[in-house]
Amino acid sequence: MEDVFIYLVPVFGILGLIVMAIKSRWVIRQETGDPNMVELAEHIAKGAMAFLKAEWKVLIYFVIIAGLILAWSGTLVPNSSWIIAVSFVIGAVLSAFAGYIGMNIATKANVRTTQAAKTSLRQALHVSFTGGSVMGLGVAGLAVLGMGSLFIVFYNMFVVSAGGDINGIEMETALEVLAGFSLGAESIALFARVGGGIYTKAADVGADLVGKVEAGIPEDDVRNPATIADNVGDNVGDVAGMGADLFGSYVATILASMVLGREIISNDNMGGLAPILLPLVIAGLGLMFSILGTFFVKITKDTDSVQNALNMGNWISILLTVGASFFLIDYMFPEGNLSLVRDPAVTFTKMGIFGAVFIGLVVGALMSIITEYYTAMGKMPVNSIIKQSGTGHATNIIGGLSVGMESTVLPILVLAAGIYTSFMAAGLYGVAIAAAGMMATTAMQLAIDAFGPIADNAGGIAEMSGLPKEVRERTDILDAVGNTTAAAGKGFAIASAALTALALFAAYVGLAGITSIDIYKADVLAGLFVGAMIPFIFSSLCIAAVGRAAMDMVNEVRRQFKEIPGIMDYTGKPEYDKCVEISTKASIREMIAPGAIALLVPILVGFIFGPEVLGGVLAGVTVSGVLMGIFQNNAGGAWDNAKKSFEKGVMIDGVMQYKGSEAHKASVTGDTVGDPFKDTSGPSMNILIKLMSIVALVIAPHISVNPTHNLPEEGIVQVNKVELKRHDLNVEIIEVK
Amino acid sequence: MEDVFIYLVPVFGILGLIVMAIKSRWVIRQETGDPNMVELAEHIAKGAMAFLKAEWKVLIYFVIIAGLILAWSGTLVPNSSWIIAVSFVIGAVLSAFAGYIGMNIATKANVRTTQAAKTSLRQALHVSFTGGSVMGLGVAGLAVLGMGSLFIVFYNMFVVSAGGDINGIEMETALEVLAGFSLGAESIALFARVGGGIYTKAADVGADLVGKVEAGIPEDDVRNPATIADNVGDNVGDVAGMGADLFGSYVATILASMVLGREIISNDNMGGLAPILLPLVIAGLGLMFSILGTFFVKITKDTDSVQNALNMGNWISILLTVGASFFLIDYMFPEGNLSLVRDPAVTFTKMGIFGAVFIGLVVGALMSIITEYYTAMGKMPVNSIIKQSGTGHATNIIGGLSVGMESTVLPILVLAAGIYTSFMAAGLYGVAIAAAGMMATTAMQLAIDAFGPIADNAGGIAEMSGLPKEVRERTDILDAVGNTTAAAGKGFAIASAALTALALFAAYVGLAGITSIDIYKADVLAGLFVGAMIPFIFSSLCIAAVGRAAMDMVNEVRRQFKEIPGIMDYTGKPEYDKCVEISTKASIREMIAPGAIALLVPILVGFIFGPEVLGGVLAGVTVSGVLMGIFQNNAGGAWDNAKKSFEKGVMIDGVMQYKGSEAHKASVTGDTVGDPFKDTSGPSMNILIKLMSIVALVIAPHISVNPTHNLPEEGIVQVNKVELKRHDLNVEIIEVK
Repeated sequence: MEDVFIYLVPVFGILGLIVMAIKSRWVIRQETGDPNMVELAEHIAKGAMAFLKAEWKVLIYFVIIAGLILAWSGTLVPNSSWIIAVSFVIGAVLSAFAGYIGMNIATKANVRTTQAAKTSLRQALHVSFTGGSVMGLGVAGLAVLGMGSLFIVFYNMFVVSAGGDINGIEMETALEVLAGFSLGAESIALFARVGGGIYTKAADVGADLVGKVEAGIPEDDVRNPATIADNVGDNVGDVAGMGADLFGSYVATILASMVLGREIISNDNMGGLAPILLPLVIAGLGLMFSILGTFFVKITKDTDSVQNALNMGNWISILLTVGASFFLIDYMFPEGNLSLVRDPAVTFTKMGIFGAVFIGLVVGALMSIITEYYTAMGKMPVNSIIKQSGTGHATNIIGGLSVGMESTVLPILVLAAGIYTSFMAAGLYGVAIAAAGMMATTAMQLAIDAFGPIADNAGGIAEMSGLPKEVRERTDILDAVGNTTAAAGKGFAIASAALTALALFAAYVGLAGITSIDIYKADVLAGLFVGAMIPFIFSSLCIAAVGRAAMDMVNEVRRQFKEIPGIMDYTGKPEYDKCVEISTKASIREMIAPGAIALLVPILVGFIFGPEVLGGVLAGVTVSGVLMGIFQNNAGGAWDNAKKSFEKGVMIDGVMQYKGSEAHKASVTGDTVGDPFKDTSGPSMNILIKLMSIVALVIAPHISVNPTHNLPEEGIVQVNKVELKRHDLNVEIIEVK
Repeated sequence: MEDVFIYLVPVFGILGLIVMAIKSRWVIRQETGDPNMVELAEHIAKGAMAFLKAEWKVLIYFVIIAGLILAWSGTLVPNSSWIIAVSFVIGAVLSAFAGYIGMNIATKANVRTTQAAKTSLRQALHVSFTGGSVMGLGVAGLAVLGMGSLFIVFYNMFVVSAGGDINGIEMETALEVLAGFSLGAESIALFARVGGGIYTKAADVGADLVGKVEAGIPEDDVRNPATIADNVGDNVGDVAGMGADLFGSYVATILASMVLGREIISNDNMGGLAPILLPLVIAGLGLMFSILGTFFVKITKDTDSVQNALNMGNWISILLTVGASFFLIDYMFPEGNLSLVRDPAVTFTKMGIFGAVFIGLVVGALMSIITEYYTAMGKMPVNSIIKQSGTGHATNIIGGLSVGMESTVLPILVLAAGIYTSFMAAGLYGVAIAAAGMMATTAMQLAIDAFGPIADNAGGIAEMSGLPKEVRERTDILDAVGNTTAAAGKGFAIASAALTALALFAAYVGLAGITSIDIYKADVLAGLFVGAMIPFIFSSLCIAAVGRAAMDMVNEVRRQFKEIPGIMDYTGKPEYDKCVEISTKASIREMIAPGAIALLVPILVGFIFGPEVLGGVLAGVTVSGVLMGIFQNNAGGAWDNAKKSFEKGVMIDGVMQYKGSEAHKASVTGDTVGDPFKDTSGPSMNILIKLMSIVALVIAPHISVNPTHNLPEEGIVQVNKVELKRHDLNVEIIEVK
């Protein structure tokens, strides 16, 4: 029976990709609009592809070098293999491909959404959401297909053909090799997210500073040389970057659950395979129900709520997945108590496992709700920032920073409760499965997330090609919903990353052969400090990079305004390509340092100070990264919506204030500060913490201190003295059975 | 021989206080200047006292209630006593008194410094630094006298008269009761620092926003109704707050070393007392050498460097203390290996202990140097912010945030190395003694720190009473040096707090009877998350409080400008008292919530989730608090000096920019944002982390899981099975000797 499940997983993946192809063809067959629009769209598509090519040119060296090192190191320890390098390369390539699929369809769906918006909101939503679905299905389909097929191969190669033990070192090797896939995916994700994030914000900030503030022309005005770069940025940062990001998260979550699942030994578990297979099957089912859910995202008339339509599709996928998980877990697992080898005292039942799935979904939902509260227009946090804009730039900034810091409280309490209860429900496996449950409907989540930037781009094209006001109004409605879903998506991403990082952390501890990470030890505590510092320097590098690149952009735009005659009266054409090039070069150059920190720190610490200190570093990175991520995402989101609130006018101390007022200018400052927070460093935090954990997992066999790996296969081991550390008790063990 | 040392400690304290009284009398005997100046100084002194009175009125309830709870709880466990309440009240009263001494002399020294500045810089430095010394000697003298005398009392009461064991539970009780002193001191410090910080920044930000920005009148202009409140703020925040802060730190550091010292058992250690006495004696010696050092802080002519004079005094105290510590440790401790009871495997020698003192001083010096680099004028970080001011408010803020985050890297690496090496040198006792070494010359450090606000105030009085330009120039020189020493002092404070918190943490672990804090356990990890979140909500509360209070201040100043005729042409008198009242009320109201969090979280977590989870919370608070402290202090300091750089003019992209330029306005925004960072939330971080550790230490006996406390006094304990957690190894212990 387990064979059916094993082989079903890649089938789910292929099904997802087939539906993706169908939806993709549908989008491409839609009308593209007038030549003016097509030309702008082509500029954007060309710029986006130029960025991807430039990025890949750098990353290919990284993949080759890292692959060679992995292949060599895989031969050094018994529980790994050089094949980890193959797995790594496939992960990297699929991650890049996932980003490509998303960006390709997004740069096609944008102009078609603009065209559709000429007829109705209904049609515009249909096109943009289908574009988003292509990305969602592509990412999830590739992940499920990739993980599923590689697992089949490695399972047969290392376990079945070697006559090995499903719960033994042979399976450990198979999963260790599979970890290479996740490492490849997550490394590319980090570079894509950071590079894309720097690109989009350098262009955005640069375009705003000269265009809006100095030249006094509106956003997305064709006269602004940086406007194409700004629109390209939406695609490379918010679409390609996010696609690679979620591909990496999805894969990492599944992997962590599989590694921990190996430790649940029970012959009734389909010969031990059930706990390893469960995360894969849940992911496959989630993908299927996401496909189903996409058909419910529609409105029948233009006055219907777009948000409700998205929620409907989302909840249908989630509830069906939960229901199916119940029956699946009930079928796959035996009655009675289960436990992990390392923690035999922590027992749980199969209903505990289902409970963990459920807890994961609740945590995800609560995180989205809290994030929305802190960033949505009309709610207290955003209103407080609006009020503080009335006394100037400084108080606006103070207000936003204060809201961002405050917004960490509830998410952390929810997360802490989630960790605690999912552990109660099913031990460490429960923590991992909670993350897997949360991530199950990634395809749908991503469809909802990706439709936002498509709509944003569609609005840009409408503005730049001077379409009638009602077209822009329709795309603005979609864009506004997109902003809310983007904020909620980030809350969700950071929660899933936290749980995944913990599961990876637990998987790492097992592979590294340590049984505790005791921060009461001076070296581990020093590691905790160093780890917690990393999100600060990482954020600093990202933010400073945006600042530098934006200044380059400002100077280039100023130059063009000065040197190219007639830009302002539309007789001269700005050199868009120059601005695209500046953003591209800056982002490629600036993504190296943060990426290197994430990859090298765990390796250096692990080999020099050993696995327990590395554990301290990982805990520090995770805790501080989650906090800095929430802080930066929410502060940025709140500043953005405080600024947007001025479009309709806001009441400050009894006076209505609109765009152009002093208070509005203060709110623009906040929004600009928030840009790199919420679109560059903030969303990179979740990749940072996962990537560092995966690197640790991959090097774990090399730095392992597991004594069982050094035990002889047969014979009796004489233990004379075991020192118990409990204070004031000295116990000498005379005889050991 | 140990008796000599025990009784020497309070003598050192009394000597310090005598010198303080002499210096205080000298300051008071200096000339006070013309009636105009005297009137202004009286306004400031009255406002400052009004704040202290209002604060004490609230805190007295807290002290009574907390004291009653402590008295009651002290009777519940064998290793505590109701006397802890007495100890707590004395600590609270002395802490408040330390703040009072400092503020009292500061409000006298300010106007006398102004008067002295009429003659020469030399004389102005002499008066202001002597004022600072009074505070330094007062704080250190009270701490040494208080700790020293109480230790004598409790040692005789609990150990000697009970015929108890110096290293046993009797001494544990004596030190637990002494911990009440530290708890009292640190609680008052938190309220004073937070309350004072909110007061000073509400007044400062409020005065600037209306005065400088709206009305266009200079800083410290008598026409600004908030100007007196602003000058009062310098005294209540930077002087009284800092005095209570350092009093608390000093006491906590000594206490932590004493608690750990109890665990070093060797009869050659003066019958076991040496490790407990050492931190007290070092503190006493440091105080004596600080007195000596103050005589070297002088310049002979007005062109001499003030900074060099301060450095000279500082290094003389430090080097003499180091030298004396060497002989002291060599005399007090025996040859051969020492170790802590809980960690017999970690052995060290007496030279290791001296090594730890030395490491502490190196860490402190490096932290000061790094902080200075990140915040000083003319260095790269401040220059980068200046450059980014050229493109507006937003890039100035991005630049400052990025510098602040980046500035965490080196301090954390230094700190991690310090933890690691001081542990190597002398185990956990080494970490504590490193902190004690760093803090030994607190009297001198504080003298240097406190002279800054005195000079700042002197400048304010000069400006407000319209004295000649050269007077203001002289006070400005002192003020500028004061800004640098303030930044360096904050770096030093956070480093010492981190080491102290670790030592307290270790002391807590011992008292709570746990042997590890394993973040690999789900509940401990959840605790780590919650702990790390606390500095975020704490900062948010402080920053938001400043924002709110500043808005109240702005509205009041606007009202006075509108309703009181003739303010602008000096014919009408502003109602200074109203502004003083707003700041006072706001700061008292807003200090409650952050204080409550710091006090209640450890109690709730400890009793509900047990000591190990509380350990996770403490680690989280410490790590995240240190990072947030460094980030906020340095960002604020860098913004401040970026703004100050415009006074002499700065070159941005080849153009000189001065005060009043757009770039300068952007830099003022950064400075205003930085104000609550560097003077309210940032410097509170170090108190927060220490206070939470002390609360944990005080409740430790109540939540202890120490099995030895449950062992019978006599007889054999049968242990049948000990489960060892090492993965895959199951060991059954048959017989236990």
